[in-house]
Amino acid sequence: MQETSVVPTIPPMLADDLPLHHVADNVEFLNTLQPEVAAELLLRLPPERAAEILDQPELYTAPEIIRVLPGERAAALLTAMAADRAVDVLHLLEAPVQAGLLARLDPETRASIERLLVYPPNTAGSIMTTEFVSVPSTWKVGETLQYIRQVERTRETVYAIYVLDPQTKRLLNAVTLRRLISADPDAPILSAARPYAPIVTSPLTDREEVARLFRKYDLLAVPVVDNIGRVLGIVTVDDAIDAILAESTEDVQKFGGVTALEKPYMQIGFGSMLGKRAGWLCALFLSEMLTASAMQHFESELEKAIVLTLFIPLIMSSGGNSGSQATSLLIRSLALRELRLGDWWRVVLRELPTGIALGAILGVIGLMRITLWQKVGLFNYGEHWFLVALTVAAALIGIVTFGSLTGSMLPFILQRLGFDPASASAPFVATLVDVTGLVIYFSVATIILRGTLL
Amino acid sequence: MQETSVVPTIPPMLADDLPLHHVADNVEFLNTLQPEVAAELLLRLPPERAAEILDQPELYTAPEIIRVLPGERAAALLTAMAADRAVDVLHLLEAPVQAGLLARLDPETRASIERLLVYPPNTAGSIMTTEFVSVPSTWKVGETLQYIRQVERTRETVYAIYVLDPQTKRLLNAVTLRRLISADPDAPILSAARPYAPIVTSPLTDREEVARLFRKYDLLAVPVVDNIGRVLGIVTVDDAIDAILAESTEDVQKFGGVTALEKPYMQIGFGSMLGKRAGWLCALFLSEMLTASAMQHFESELEKAIVLTLFIPLIMSSGGNSGSQATSLLIRSLALRELRLGDWWRVVLRELPTGIALGAILGVIGLMRITLWQKVGLFNYGEHWFLVALTVAAALIGIVTFGSLTGSMLPFILQRLGFDPASASAPFVATLVDVTGLVIYFSVATIILRGTLL
Repeated sequence: MQETSVVPTIPPMLADDLPLHHVADNVEFLNTLQPEVAAELLLRLPPERAAEILDQPELYTAPEIIRVLPGERAAALLTAMAADRAVDVLHLLEAPVQAGLLARLDPETRASIERLLVYPPNTAGSIMTTEFVSVPSTWKVGETLQYIRQVERTRETVYAIYVLDPQTKRLLNAVTLRRLISADPDAPILSAARPYAPIVTSPLTDREEVARLFRKYDLLAVPVVDNIGRVLGIVTVDDAIDAILAESTEDVQKFGGVTALEKPYMQIGFGSMLGKRAGWLCALFLSEMLTASAMQHFESELEKAIVLTLFIPLIMSSGGNSGSQATSLLIRSLALRELRLGDWWRVVLRELPTGIALGAILGVIGLMRITLWQKVGLFNYGEHWFLVALTVAAALIGIVTFGSLTGSMLPFILQRLGFDPASASAPFVATLVDVTGLVIYFSVATIILRGTLL
Repeated sequence: MQETSVVPTIPPMLADDLPLHHVADNVEFLNTLQPEVAAELLLRLPPERAAEILDQPELYTAPEIIRVLPGERAAALLTAMAADRAVDVLHLLEAPVQAGLLARLDPETRASIERLLVYPPNTAGSIMTTEFVSVPSTWKVGETLQYIRQVERTRETVYAIYVLDPQTKRLLNAVTLRRLISADPDAPILSAARPYAPIVTSPLTDREEVARLFRKYDLLAVPVVDNIGRVLGIVTVDDAIDAILAESTEDVQKFGGVTALEKPYMQIGFGSMLGKRAGWLCALFLSEMLTASAMQHFESELEKAIVLTLFIPLIMSSGGNSGSQATSLLIRSLALRELRLGDWWRVVLRELPTGIALGAILGVIGLMRITLWQKVGLFNYGEHWFLVALTVAAALIGIVTFGSLTGSMLPFILQRLGFDPASASAPFVATLVDVTGLVIYFSVATIILRGTLL
């Protein structure tokens, strides 16, 4: 469902007006236009401004805009854009268009973009930029400041300066601009550095792990180094924020039982939306079929005591709910590294009493509900109504405890098996708990109701 | 379950060793110690280092450490800490301890902390710091740089400089340090500013909204201004990242049906953990009791066609799963402002065909499953088995469509009513869908099976 443009033709003054607003507001406006119209508008802007707008990851239509621009202009804009963003945009274009654009770039830009293109999506390498400031360790503070003044406009950040060994080009340390401007201009550059080794990452590190470094160390940029310690690029804090949000979105979507969308809801076509949801839904449906098998197994009990069926949805949903609660808590604790794999037994020791207590609370409510309905005369659960109520209460304790344990252990098990613990979705947990829940319910019933109803 | 310390006594060299590591690593280590031991260790460190460690929001035990420190030392450390963090720590102490510490502070620090203490948690006012750089608009670039060099060590950031009207003290614009060092020292300070009004926020703005500004405008700090435009403080990007993560954690926990924990899993006491989960679990249990009422209503149908009960868990869980998928997609879209309240009908137009298609896919699988079991002889669903299979398939289409619509609309409805759309938890949606799902199932059954089984 392509949104139709609200601006059929560009008012002549619009192109003059855009630079007077923040680039992020320009992006919001351009997102409402057809790519052809947006491209026309960008052509009328000063090239630096057009590149600045295309640099924003929030401009969803950037690949389409680049596609419809004349090749020469598209190549010029890609050159002016931040290398990391140019790579993101190229990644979203078809191979022939991508190759055509790369061929038009000057050799230096092409080389630096091709170097970034090889890193898989969602790695530090794929979100890093090569536009950073580095100086040899032989430089002094004053001469570094002078250099920064010259290159400032072409660098994504100048607040962290990377000091390299002049021979090996390995990273020795990082210096912040705030320390630099306060330092003695004649002091060696390394005198303004912190006394410990710089925080670094590697190009194949997952962006989630990189974001964790920003959070832990309150950084504005992290250098990405190769295996002998040379700086390949840097990840800046705005990219880290985008990564954190993208990961959170993925986590919520996965927890809801959807394959991560990777695009805003309205930008996804009908077919791929179906694909993102049908896979999990079918897998869950197939597993949930075991409930039908479990019910078939207990068919004779069901026929004898049809009153038991009345509480099946109630009891099963309580197991699913307590499981989904536990899973949501543990997914986040593992994602934020508050807990590690080896902590699973400490979690079991907490979830076991928690589950029993929660189950007991629900059990008491259930017991009261059945007693009340029976006494007031709202429904007749038969002569053995109290045993039925006891069955429901005991089953609730068992099922809520089982739900809490399953829900809390599933993220650990997934992580142990090498999967993302966030793949433990609420529907996944509910499905796991449902089948066992039925077995618990009917087993409890067999014990309590033997000789009366069963 | 208080964790017991792994370090019974402090090795003498430990205090000398801490400053050689990144403060974030010191925090990780101190988190493993008893507050009393950590306090003793902090007392042996240089005061600036101790304050720097206490400044980290990741030091969960900071309030306990401050509580056990001698009053004089605690007050000195609170003075040296960033004002916003000192306020966070004081917020977590009991009123008498808080008052006792405030009384020991020098009047200036006390005033600035008391000013911050009034802002409710999770607002811009509660996470802002008062340690920023501001200069009158009459200053020149060079003079501003000279001033920054003097105050650099006492400010949380110097990368954004706020230019004020010398008379009214209102914020005129913001200048970045990178532009400042490249500008002509004799030029007026405002010549280094951007041509549009600065991005600002107000002290009572929700931190989620503030984080959105950082994301959209790629900022390193946002000034918090009062109603006539004077700067009260600034929120820095590291606080914005913490806010984003805290909000994401809250969103996942709420989606799992838990009241947001606000502390790491292992830091929560058994009683409060129970409280965070029992409330929602009981509310859901009470609502889910309607399923028992619905089942009671259809008791005569159940008795006549016990075969129908076999598929109740399967059908109900499919409704809940599709609802939970839709909810997870819409919660994020609304949180990231990809969609607005007025877009609800566009979502309905997408979810309706999506739900029907997904329901049809599951319906076909269900039909095949029943046919297969019947034909192979795994189970006998009776002479009207095909009508039963048709009932299951038709009910699945209805329930999955209803689940997708309910799941997608619930976040909109909650937002419209003034609640957080993220309160639409997976268990909440499942519960809503369950009762209606049963009604749909039995209604479909009544139509298809009338005259045969029913």
